[in-house]
Amino acid sequence: MSTMAKLPRRSAFFLSDRTGITIEMLGHSLLRQFENLTFTEIVLPYLDTTEKAKAIVAQINEYAALDGVRPLVFSTFVNAEIRSLLDSANALHMDCFNIFINPLETELGVRSSHTVGRSHRVDDRMDYGQRIEAIRYTLEHDDGVSHRNWQQAGIILIGVSRSGKTPTCLYLALQYGICAANYPLVPEDFRYRRLPVELQNLREKLFGFTADPVRLHQIRNERKPGSEYASLKNCEYEVREAEALMRQEGIPYLDATSKSIEELATAVLHEAKLERKIY
Amino acid sequence: MSTMAKLPRRSAFFLSDRTGITIEMLGHSLLRQFENLTFTEIVLPYLDTTEKAKAIVAQINEYAALDGVRPLVFSTFVNAEIRSLLDSANALHMDCFNIFINPLETELGVRSSHTVGRSHRVDDRMDYGQRIEAIRYTLEHDDGVSHRNWQQAGIILIGVSRSGKTPTCLYLALQYGICAANYPLVPEDFRYRRLPVELQNLREKLFGFTADPVRLHQIRNERKPGSEYASLKNCEYEVREAEALMRQEGIPYLDATSKSIEELATAVLHEAKLERKIY
Repeated sequence: MSTMAKLPRRSAFFLSDRTGITIEMLGHSLLRQFENLTFTEIVLPYLDTTEKAKAIVAQINEYAALDGVRPLVFSTFVNAEIRSLLDSANALHMDCFNIFINPLETELGVRSSHTVGRSHRVDDRMDYGQRIEAIRYTLEHDDGVSHRNWQQAGIILIGVSRSGKTPTCLYLALQYGICAANYPLVPEDFRYRRLPVELQNLREKLFGFTADPVRLHQIRNERKPGSEYASLKNCEYEVREAEALMRQEGIPYLDATSKSIEELATAVLHEAKLERKIY
Repeated sequence: MSTMAKLPRRSAFFLSDRTGITIEMLGHSLLRQFENLTFTEIVLPYLDTTEKAKAIVAQINEYAALDGVRPLVFSTFVNAEIRSLLDSANALHMDCFNIFINPLETELGVRSSHTVGRSHRVDDRMDYGQRIEAIRYTLEHDDGVSHRNWQQAGIILIGVSRSGKTPTCLYLALQYGICAANYPLVPEDFRYRRLPVELQNLREKLFGFTADPVRLHQIRNERKPGSEYASLKNCEYEVREAEALMRQEGIPYLDATSKSIEELATAVLHEAKLERKIY
């Protein structure tokens, strides 16, 4: 008999006096290291008063009683009073702010401001405007729609249809404020095996995505079942031609198959040596 | 003479054997608590071999010598060998994986898998497909463009033009896999002070954004300077009418002025009680 089967279901809380996005990502990735266990995940942002904190402590204690094991609590509380209230809950409480801010204060020789809401840069109008402009630009330059003003792009992704260009561009714009255009390589580009005229002077901005033809065939078939466009034969042809074109033109490219949007965006940033702006 | 002026510039490294997105967000938000200090931030993802790790240790030691103070190193290394190599650098090294994984293993009574690349769900085809579909849906339903298939939306944001609906919808789709449509309230909606026919049966999906008219006027003026659309008088009129309409129809809404995209997305998720899916 496996001991696994005896393990109770655990509740995991992600708590913050701000949006909770960072602690949710961190806590979730930690829990995914325990692949045989399942967790009930509860995200509670904006816990910024002692009243709310007390209510959550009561909720955590209820879950502890129901589950028969104490919950895991991941948090980032800038407010020390709220943090210590949570310490009183029947839980394993891991606060990510507290654990790092003290060694940082010691190292830097100054006290931190302990101010809530410093993590996203809305207070900086210039940066915020740049981010919104990047989103607008990226939407206008999706899928080769607008050919105007490609000089403004920080990066132009090229590749066959459905290789992951659009989600990656959106991620680059939203997360890093980068004006990210994309241009789908189409049969006409393959026929002459050369870049479209508009892109020929922008080589230093180009980055290519390729894909496994079998996977591309599956993905396209979900959208346009049985079409010539989705056929394995056509996918093989397009991938072969796109790769030949990118090699010939000296454009760096990567295989986007089985990579997450985060992994693609990170790889593009890293390989194209773009400046990351963090929001 | 202020002691602040004497503080040297610090280098801060965000390192990971994966994308580094989580540690970058966490480390950056911690550093922003030290508002009088400036940091040179260096993000290095995919440090997944001992060779790369040794090169980074050398780089960190160079920065330490140049700066005259040891750098701060924030990391999430699943690989213990790489992590301990980094411990040998002349730096304050804070590893976010290590600091939490041990108490978690003790609490849960099992060893973690220590597997790199578990943080984003590309391995789960269903989830990944749902996320890509949400992005596609959201792009098609931006700015009231497509009126088809609004039933599929998890949420429909309404509000005056330039109140932040589009970036928030994109964030909800990318980060949480939510099909997020948006519909701009326009003069015709105000004239009859009622919802467009297509939205009248979808009240439970509606959530409204309003904005400070002065700020709205500034934002619109950047795009269309001197236009009637951007005038303060028109912005005041639109905001007043939009709020009256939303109150009359019982649609929950929030003031989106001065909120970051993350804050808006979190507020929408929280208030509309949508399920968060984490990628």
